[in-house]
Amino acid sequence: MDEAKPLVGIIMGSTSDMPAMEPCMKQLDEFGIPYEVKVASAHRKPAEVHIWAETAHERGMKVIVAAAGKAAHLGGVVAAYTPLPVIGVPMKTSDLGGMDSLLSMVQMPSGVPVACVAINGAKNAAIEAAQIIGTSDPEVLQKIIDFKQAMAEA
Amino acid sequence: MDEAKPLVGIIMGSTSDMPAMEPCMKQLDEFGIPYEVKVASAHRKPAEVHIWAETAHERGMKVIVAAAGKAAHLGGVVAAYTPLPVIGVPMKTSDLGGMDSLLSMVQMPSGVPVACVAINGAKNAAIEAAQIIGTSDPEVLQKIIDFKQAMAEA
Amino acid sequence: MDEAKPLVGIIMGSTSDMPAMEPCMKQLDEFGIPYEVKVASAHRKPAEVHIWAETAHERGMKVIVAAAGKAAHLGGVVAAYTPLPVIGVPMKTSDLGGMDSLLSMVQMPSGVPVACVAINGAKNAAIEAAQIIGTSDPEVLQKIIDFKQAMAEA
Amino acid sequence: MDEAKPLVGIIMGSTSDMPAMEPCMKQLDEFGIPYEVKVASAHRKPAEVHIWAETAHERGMKVIVAAAGKAAHLGGVVAAYTPLPVIGVPMKTSDLGGMDSLLSMVQMPSGVPVACVAINGAKNAAIEAAQIIGTSDPEVLQKIIDFKQAMAEA
Amino acid sequence: MDEAKPLVGIIMGSTSDMPAMEPCMKQLDEFGIPYEVKVASAHRKPAEVHIWAETAHERGMKVIVAAAGKAAHLGGVVAAYTPLPVIGVPMKTSDLGGMDSLLSMVQMPSGVPVACVAINGAKNAAIEAAQIIGTSDPEVLQKIIDFKQAMAEA
Amino acid sequence: MDEAKPLVGIIMGSTSDMPAMEPCMKQLDEFGIPYEVKVASAHRKPAEVHIWAETAHERGMKVIVAAAGKAAHLGGVVAAYTPLPVIGVPMKTSDLGGMDSLLSMVQMPSGVPVACVAINGAKNAAIEAAQIIGTSDPEVLQKIIDFKQAMAEA
Amino acid sequence: MDEAKPLVGIIMGSTSDMPAMEPCMKQLDEFGIPYEVKVASAHRKPAEVHIWAETAHERGMKVIVAAAGKAAHLGGVVAAYTPLPVIGVPMKTSDLGGMDSLLSMVQMPSGVPVACVAINGAKNAAIEAAQIIGTSDPEVLQKIIDFKQAMAEA
Amino acid sequence: MDEAKPLVGIIMGSTSDMPAMEPCMKQLDEFGIPYEVKVASAHRKPAEVHIWAETAHERGMKVIVAAAGKAAHLGGVVAAYTPLPVIGVPMKTSDLGGMDSLLSMVQMPSGVPVACVAINGAKNAAIEAAQIIGTSDPEVLQKIIDFKQAMAEA
Repeated sequence: MDEAKPLVGIIMGSTSDMPAMEPCMKQLDEFGIPYEVKVASAHRKPAEVHIWAETAHERGMKVIVAAAGKAAHLGGVVAAYTPLPVIGVPMKTSDLGGMDSLLSMVQMPSGVPVACVAINGAKNAAIEAAQIIGTSDPEVLQKIIDFKQAMAEA
Repeated sequence: MDEAKPLVGIIMGSTSDMPAMEPCMKQLDEFGIPYEVKVASAHRKPAEVHIWAETAHERGMKVIVAAAGKAAHLGGVVAAYTPLPVIGVPMKTSDLGGMDSLLSMVQMPSGVPVACVAINGAKNAAIEAAQIIGTSDPEVLQKIIDFKQAMAEA
Repeated sequence: MDEAKPLVGIIMGSTSDMPAMEPCMKQLDEFGIPYEVKVASAHRKPAEVHIWAETAHERGMKVIVAAAGKAAHLGGVVAAYTPLPVIGVPMKTSDLGGMDSLLSMVQMPSGVPVACVAINGAKNAAIEAAQIIGTSDPEVLQKIIDFKQAMAEA
Repeated sequence: MDEAKPLVGIIMGSTSDMPAMEPCMKQLDEFGIPYEVKVASAHRKPAEVHIWAETAHERGMKVIVAAAGKAAHLGGVVAAYTPLPVIGVPMKTSDLGGMDSLLSMVQMPSGVPVACVAINGAKNAAIEAAQIIGTSDPEVLQKIIDFKQAMAEA
Repeated sequence: MDEAKPLVGIIMGSTSDMPAMEPCMKQLDEFGIPYEVKVASAHRKPAEVHIWAETAHERGMKVIVAAAGKAAHLGGVVAAYTPLPVIGVPMKTSDLGGMDSLLSMVQMPSGVPVACVAINGAKNAAIEAAQIIGTSDPEVLQKIIDFKQAMAEA
Repeated sequence: MDEAKPLVGIIMGSTSDMPAMEPCMKQLDEFGIPYEVKVASAHRKPAEVHIWAETAHERGMKVIVAAAGKAAHLGGVVAAYTPLPVIGVPMKTSDLGGMDSLLSMVQMPSGVPVACVAINGAKNAAIEAAQIIGTSDPEVLQKIIDFKQAMAEA
Repeated sequence: MDEAKPLVGIIMGSTSDMPAMEPCMKQLDEFGIPYEVKVASAHRKPAEVHIWAETAHERGMKVIVAAAGKAAHLGGVVAAYTPLPVIGVPMKTSDLGGMDSLLSMVQMPSGVPVACVAINGAKNAAIEAAQIIGTSDPEVLQKIIDFKQAMAEA
Repeated sequence: MDEAKPLVGIIMGSTSDMPAMEPCMKQLDEFGIPYEVKVASAHRKPAEVHIWAETAHERGMKVIVAAAGKAAHLGGVVAAYTPLPVIGVPMKTSDLGGMDSLLSMVQMPSGVPVACVAINGAKNAAIEAAQIIGTSDPEVLQKIIDFKQAMAEA
């Protein structure tokens, strides 16, 4: 696996989502999976998101992780433009606890899925991304198996 | 007011939203406000929505009405690309009653508003659109005043 | 645009809503749109609200922004008396997070719309108001376009 | 008790609420408590509601029962204008089951209460109204006692 | 009105509800309406609640105010035993915000109403109680009218 | 085990709950566990419920199953009077789907538990009751083991 | 009753649940009922949970108390493997208040019940467990009766 | 791609979930992706699910799709035993609309993700599965690209 070439594209709507997403980066680091991080709002920078999403698979990305809060459209907007699997991370919100983010991400209409993990489930998004990469990379698959084994023995 | 030139752009995510949106068209007809209707999913036809939204104000539109259900991103996607006011109509859904559509539309992040009416509130979207047009068209304003008077006397 | 003549009427149910509404005033200031601020509860001062709402369009107002919490009737009460477009801002509440305010504002019955922005979405209410004014004021429309451009480049 | 003079004022937002409210009238009939029925929307006929509410206690009414659905402001609007106790009946809604009506009625801000019964709780509104009248009318109090006794023995 | 004889019976499930209920006592004091306060859980002291409720009207009480949280049965249990009108005050809860208390109080089945005010709506419960007493006490009615007038002028 | 002596007391608030509760009786029949069925509302027949609950353990009952809907207090009222374990079955409701029944049953305050199964979970209430009886009756424990085995092999 | 042999098996998904579960252990101590405590996640240590659950009744356990949060499967997983009655304690969560834990525990499908107490209802889980043990242990039954009596007199 | 060897394992809790899951099988057929279908409840047949999940990757599976309703633990139970990516499909429920299924699936604790699609989102689960397979199979990736293109042109 060429460490220099990102396999996971992490995109989030705002720099304020960064602390909540750090467990995602940390977990990918632990799995040794290279990633790129992009901060761009689907609403404030739609063209930038559009281009980033549309070209992700051409730049070698295998999986997208999209984190957003409230009317969390980022996952859906990215999913509209990419043939890659998109994992959504609904951000916790101060008023509705993240129920708004969750429903805005998970209830995607037919044809364009966003597969969501839990509210603020950044670490799990990394694990799901690794599992996806593991479907074709035996080394990563083994890391997942080891990771599960370590949890069982913790 | 040039009847041939649409002032309101109505966009909906699916032809299945058409019956729920008919009261919107009917009410605009009653106010004599010309409109155009577009059916295009933000997720399935993102580029088409992008272009339609981006050019709406150049084509003479004054207001956008966007109707969508579930993870209802259409309003937000249109709002990302247009400087016009966007009115969202959350569609009722069979599982969550439209709570998903409502939160996906109304909880827009800072910078890009979508102003929502009630779940399946198609007629009210038309009235709000007319009120917006009435802010600069005294004839339409008078129609709103008459409409409210007629309701009060009904 | 005559700066001395308010174009947006901001009404809120209580002085306790003022801090949450400040981003609205600030954003209108940035757009150079004059506004008036009124604090009056629909329930405690119904007659005062009635008169304020009924005369708003005669005093030159183009748009109403109404902020209220809990059983948030202020938007609906104002909308009952004015032919102007009403934008509702549901206030966050300490027990139900603002879900009560949101449903009390957005679920308006047929005939009298209140177009809601997000819970505590004061800044977005200002942007929506500006977009409405921009439908007939090219200078304000240009400011919205510039504002969106600035967000995209931020 | 003068049967010809209504003691309970029943107001509902729409004729469509009538079937759901019939158990209220029927129960008052069974208690022999005279009532008047008014159909007027707080939003579509605000002035009419205003006058009706403001004069209710002068016309001899003791209690108001207000039924409304969705953003159910009717109870609050009536309560704003009357010194009488107001009982709210939140109407079931087809999309959110009446949760919107309930929160819009029950979450009244400090100073102006609306005391709510269950969603579509029309019969219970009549019983509560009778209990209120029974606080000063021993005959009605006895009817309530008998009514409860009959339920216990049913 | 004999100040020594309580007209309102305030019952709450726990001493921990006392701070939230203080505005109720304070408001009744301001109206000069005598009340008695009882702390007894419907679940932990059912027999005590039973006797208190069953005899309330015989001891001269006119209205019951019942405050409870979570699975808030106190209002319903009291209502089962008294012919007096019962006003429920759902207590805010730390996990569900009081939605549990509200539904447990307001959704009473047919035959035995509890008329609820807002979550933690202690002051409004006092006002509603005063309004009920005001239906037969012109002095209290006048106090309500004055109270509303004072709010309108505040 | 003396078949003639009921070990499970099933109580429900209304005869309208009977169809939803039939799977409970059927499952107890299949386990050969004798039961008694009581229909009595906690609100309409409080004294009857009181006596029934208070004497249940003296009449040889081991477990109570209480089914009720809306502001479902029956479980809590029974639990207040009995030292026996109480299993609550929240009934599905036509407006809120049973969320009201569930919260009214499950959120019992400290000291008086009601252990709830799913909304309309009548069959599971029977199984839980059987499991409780099985804690001291090896024959019933074996039946539970066989029942689980049969499910696994179905 | 042999104090050395645990009758209640308390299992929780994470050591972070320990503080919330302490009232359960404390209450069992007060009743003099021996218990064992196990910390093991259904998802991270499935095999360990499987074995613990499957053998619980053979090791002399009478009741299981399972505490977990979020997608709280622990109760269901244990219930799948044991013929003993399982009491679920849904843990409060920081985003959705425990509504997720509650629904994940209580809404068990037909055949495999988990009987839930309130969100964070650890003390009540102990009381329910004691009530179950009391169905065959007259000493424990008497302790429950005394406990209820003490509450009534507190 | 060897058509005879299943790449996607579809598991559902009950045969009653089959109609809702048919769009998943149909969509995989259209993509030409072989799959196997397993019906086994996590609660009624835990050992069978355990073995199926634990061996899935050894039998050549790349992705698991797990569909379940109510306290929908199936996805989590499978995820506990497999290193493969798991996609959850929350089944719509008759009482809570599927909110229970959704929260039970999506809110997985740290370490063991289940990536959820919408309530009853069977078709989207198939697309997500195909996208995952497409990360290492250029033919499938091209099919996804074509599928998206066809939607855009529909």
